[in-house]
Amino acid sequence: MNLIILEPGEVSDAGEVRLSGVRAAHLLDVLKVAPGQHVRVGLLDGPHGIGVVESLRGGTVNLRCVFDAQAPPPPMVDLLLALPRPKVMRRLWAQLAALGVGQIMLTNAARVERNYFDAHILGPDCYRPLLVEGLQQARDTRLPRVSIHRQLKVLVEDELDGAFATGRRLVADVAQTTPVGVAVGGRADERILLAIGPEGGWNDFERQLFEAHGFQPVSMGPRTLRTDTACVALLALVHDALRGRAPG
Amino acid sequence: MNLIILEPGEVSDAGEVRLSGVRAAHLLDVLKVAPGQHVRVGLLDGPHGIGVVESLRGGTVNLRCVFDAQAPPPPMVDLLLALPRPKVMRRLWAQLAALGVGQIMLTNAARVERNYFDAHILGPDCYRPLLVEGLQQARDTRLPRVSIHRQLKVLVEDELDGAFATGRRLVADVAQTTPVGVAVGGRADERILLAIGPEGGWNDFERQLFEAHGFQPVSMGPRTLRTDTACVALLALVHDALRGRAPG
Repeated sequence: MNLIILEPGEVSDAGEVRLSGVRAAHLLDVLKVAPGQHVRVGLLDGPHGIGVVESLRGGTVNLRCVFDAQAPPPPMVDLLLALPRPKVMRRLWAQLAALGVGQIMLTNAARVERNYFDAHILGPDCYRPLLVEGLQQARDTRLPRVSIHRQLKVLVEDELDGAFATGRRLVADVAQTTPVGVAVGGRADERILLAIGPEGGWNDFERQLFEAHGFQPVSMGPRTLRTDTACVALLALVHDALRGRAPG
Repeated sequence: MNLIILEPGEVSDAGEVRLSGVRAAHLLDVLKVAPGQHVRVGLLDGPHGIGVVESLRGGTVNLRCVFDAQAPPPPMVDLLLALPRPKVMRRLWAQLAALGVGQIMLTNAARVERNYFDAHILGPDCYRPLLVEGLQQARDTRLPRVSIHRQLKVLVEDELDGAFATGRRLVADVAQTTPVGVAVGGRADERILLAIGPEGGWNDFERQLFEAHGFQPVSMGPRTLRTDTACVALLALVHDALRGRAPG
């Protein structure tokens, strides 16, 4: 936990917050804080700040926080992901938030099993704490927005222009050769939408659907990776390419 | 399982092999093979090949294999990794083999807990099947060599020149700014050794030790990642940079 994330409703107008549970335990047992000490805090979907430890009592920690004037910008990458099996999706939530994504669109596809959509792990009660864990790891405050789409065709044809109005659309495809860094391009203000398919890949209909809606195929080499490995690897490549862009 | 890996001792001089267990179940239940059908096979640490299904009986599959003349080259990247906690290490084995590493040197460091070295997951009986699983995922045959080092200083000062004689040495450090792609350089025949630290980072002594032994610090941006996420992300960046090199 490299940043203590606070929910907006937890903090008083004077910047006071009383922590208990996991966050307090981290401050007490790992950081071993004492009154007067400063800790990094962040308001969920808001600015970073500094919390001064005011008092400790019976497993709770009272902080008085001062926040920056502005929240950090959301990550420049959005993810469109064919829903992997629940065990893999469970592992991915925190990693996606840590790597940095603005929104996560989970979708059906021909090679996605229908019953994956019934998984407990798709409920906000289950995934939200995992996303926050990832933010606390990576010192970000921007909670990825999550949406779930039962029909890829409806998502791409009818909903995507609203959810991702402008920017560059990429679709990962092991059969292609364009490197991610080339496809990301050099315009600093242009958002990236990255589509990642199921373990068995997109089928021909889906490939054509993406192509017809402005997605450029990109590759990360000939090795076929598990969905969770591929997500982390591809997001790392996109972020690296974004850092290499000229400032806007 | 995108490739059926065979152990050298399993295959007769005539190229015949009888499979049972997980590999046979995959051929029968997932690929639903029939006699005469061709499947991709690979000899562990040897060449790729084609196996022709000769017969199926009671959950076993008999293949007759023909192998390429040459084995693929081992991956151009080696990994020096501060041993993460056992749960994380367990998740990493297959992913490391899938991404492609020539050798994995697991080491102690100031911020590694000693008892991690007692973990079951460091026994070859435990990690070897996970490495093979990663190879089968990524269609590689080259089993990463694994070594375990109780003292980082001894490894870097006394053993490393033998284990990694020539090539470029990089150490990941979140405090640095040189991108991985720049540090990997353009010489196609030059191997890369990538050192990745513990969750809390290397300490000053360790940073100086690396610097004194020719490691160049590299960064993948300001976000602090969990060890498993960082390993996948950094290896993806190194492999991407290697693909971008001019052919030797």
